[in-house]
Amino acid sequence: MTVVLFAAGAALWPEYEAPLRAAFAKAGLAADLVTEAAPETVDCIVYAPSSPLQDFAPFTTCRLVQNLWAGVERIVGNTTLTQPLCRMVDPGLTEGMVEYVVGHVLRHHLGMDKFIHGAPGWDQVVPPLARERRVTLLGLGALGLACATALRALNFQVEGWSRTAKTGLPFPAHHGEAGLDTALRRTDILVTLLPRTPETENLMNARRIALLPPGAVIINPGRGALIDDDALLAALDAGAVGHATLDVFRQEPLPADHPYRHHPRVTVTPHIAADTRASTAAQVVAENLRRALAGEPLLHQVDRSRGY
Amino acid sequence: MTVVLFAAGAALWPEYEAPLRAAFAKAGLAADLVTEAAPETVDCIVYAPSSPLQDFAPFTTCRLVQNLWAGVERIVGNTTLTQPLCRMVDPGLTEGMVEYVVGHVLRHHLGMDKFIHGAPGWDQVVPPLARERRVTLLGLGALGLACATALRALNFQVEGWSRTAKTGLPFPAHHGEAGLDTALRRTDILVTLLPRTPETENLMNARRIALLPPGAVIINPGRGALIDDDALLAALDAGAVGHATLDVFRQEPLPADHPYRHHPRVTVTPHIAADTRASTAAQVVAENLRRALAGEPLLHQVDRSRGY
Repeated sequence: MTVVLFAAGAALWPEYEAPLRAAFAKAGLAADLVTEAAPETVDCIVYAPSSPLQDFAPFTTCRLVQNLWAGVERIVGNTTLTQPLCRMVDPGLTEGMVEYVVGHVLRHHLGMDKFIHGAPGWDQVVPPLARERRVTLLGLGALGLACATALRALNFQVEGWSRTAKTGLPFPAHHGEAGLDTALRRTDILVTLLPRTPETENLMNARRIALLPPGAVIINPGRGALIDDDALLAALDAGAVGHATLDVFRQEPLPADHPYRHHPRVTVTPHIAADTRASTAAQVVAENLRRALAGEPLLHQVDRSRGY
Repeated sequence: MTVVLFAAGAALWPEYEAPLRAAFAKAGLAADLVTEAAPETVDCIVYAPSSPLQDFAPFTTCRLVQNLWAGVERIVGNTTLTQPLCRMVDPGLTEGMVEYVVGHVLRHHLGMDKFIHGAPGWDQVVPPLARERRVTLLGLGALGLACATALRALNFQVEGWSRTAKTGLPFPAHHGEAGLDTALRRTDILVTLLPRTPETENLMNARRIALLPPGAVIINPGRGALIDDDALLAALDAGAVGHATLDVFRQEPLPADHPYRHHPRVTVTPHIAADTRASTAAQVVAENLRRALAGEPLLHQVDRSRGY
């Protein structure tokens, strides 16, 4: 019997227990799903960043640590963690992210806010078409590519940027330091979907924010640390950046007195852009467990040298 | 030389003159585009509902009256108009409509308004996925079908309704009186994209509005007359309808003291959902003129017995 330790926290157990059991059964895995076990008996750990489990050394026969979240920055530096670590790439999470990104891109593209606030009068300014609007995605992983596909289907002029070069994409993709400057100079709406790593910390600093065309919009559903908050606030105050829609923050919940909270050019959403869905995530866990037991390559295994 | 009378009004002439001349040249048509001409010399009339031209009888050799708008309700009943009348189906107009509809569907789907108004706190309620949300389109013409395609690409559960049966669609399509009741009972977000005809006047009356599930949202970028305003306001006051986003009204501009103006459950946009774009519309005019001169079937010719 394969022992699967659910170490993602008591709060998530009621949500995940039934979907995980169902997914293991569907995959034909004789798995014993438990919330406590002697470490040396555990074959697989289902993990979340908020878990109290921090010492992985005693889990000597564990073949898979499966994170339930896409982000692994709070665990990847743990030196006791020598077992294979996998990020969650959940189809439900991806769909939710695409819906959030496309929705907020269209919101800014159409200039919806003034009508939602209740514009008086009858100012018939028709917005440009999507084919005349440039949307740039920083980060071309599973989430960035899914967003690019959906935005391109709506005719937006999509470009992208990633740390290392990507080829074969059906849209212009920049890479590296110089490519980032180029990408930032030619966008109307910037979407930041990068992982948090030492390299991406404060990626959007004052210098790079200043490269954006006047009035550009920033949408950040990625990681709070991607943006230098003071630099963004200064650019918003000056009107250099037209609006920022932010879903993630260095400190969450975002404090009630944070300057983002009441800034007229900022929209705060409470880290809801993309959530792992138990039903679809459980199937990913089961498939990775099957692969771990069969000695097959794991899905979305973390490269510790890159940090994601 | 073919004489094309631009009778769409002096206000539109500066916007359309150059695109029309360019489109005629590109199509190889030796057309004389004028704003005044002896009626009996005119081969084609480019028309808009706001035009002062109302007597078509003197235009004895005119082979095409090409409306620049999709809606023809203000001209189709004109008994002097015996020449072939065509609606505009402009790719730019269609794209604009798709962007408006998808944008506002996502806005309601994601519950954006509370964050745009600035929600305090940190209420992490993740919205359902689009695949769990039902969107129903009333009207399956060029605009309705384009919206259906875009919404289905985002995984929404799309259904449709049209007056007469449509077959071969990749989503459930209802038709006729009974089909409309069925469609209304099973939707979360209703989009009304029907033409204005005697049959569609007040289509959404009190009885039909009451068929919608509690809290359903109505988006009307079609025609103001599709909705019984008093019935909708009563349903909004009672909370039976969750929100109405309205782009078209019986009287435009919508008066400043109209109850829709300050209703907390209503968003008013000033008839901007879809606008004919001169550059793309001019190419449709040129193609239809070519067809008229060649005796080929016209694009989007109006069936006067149906009214559109």
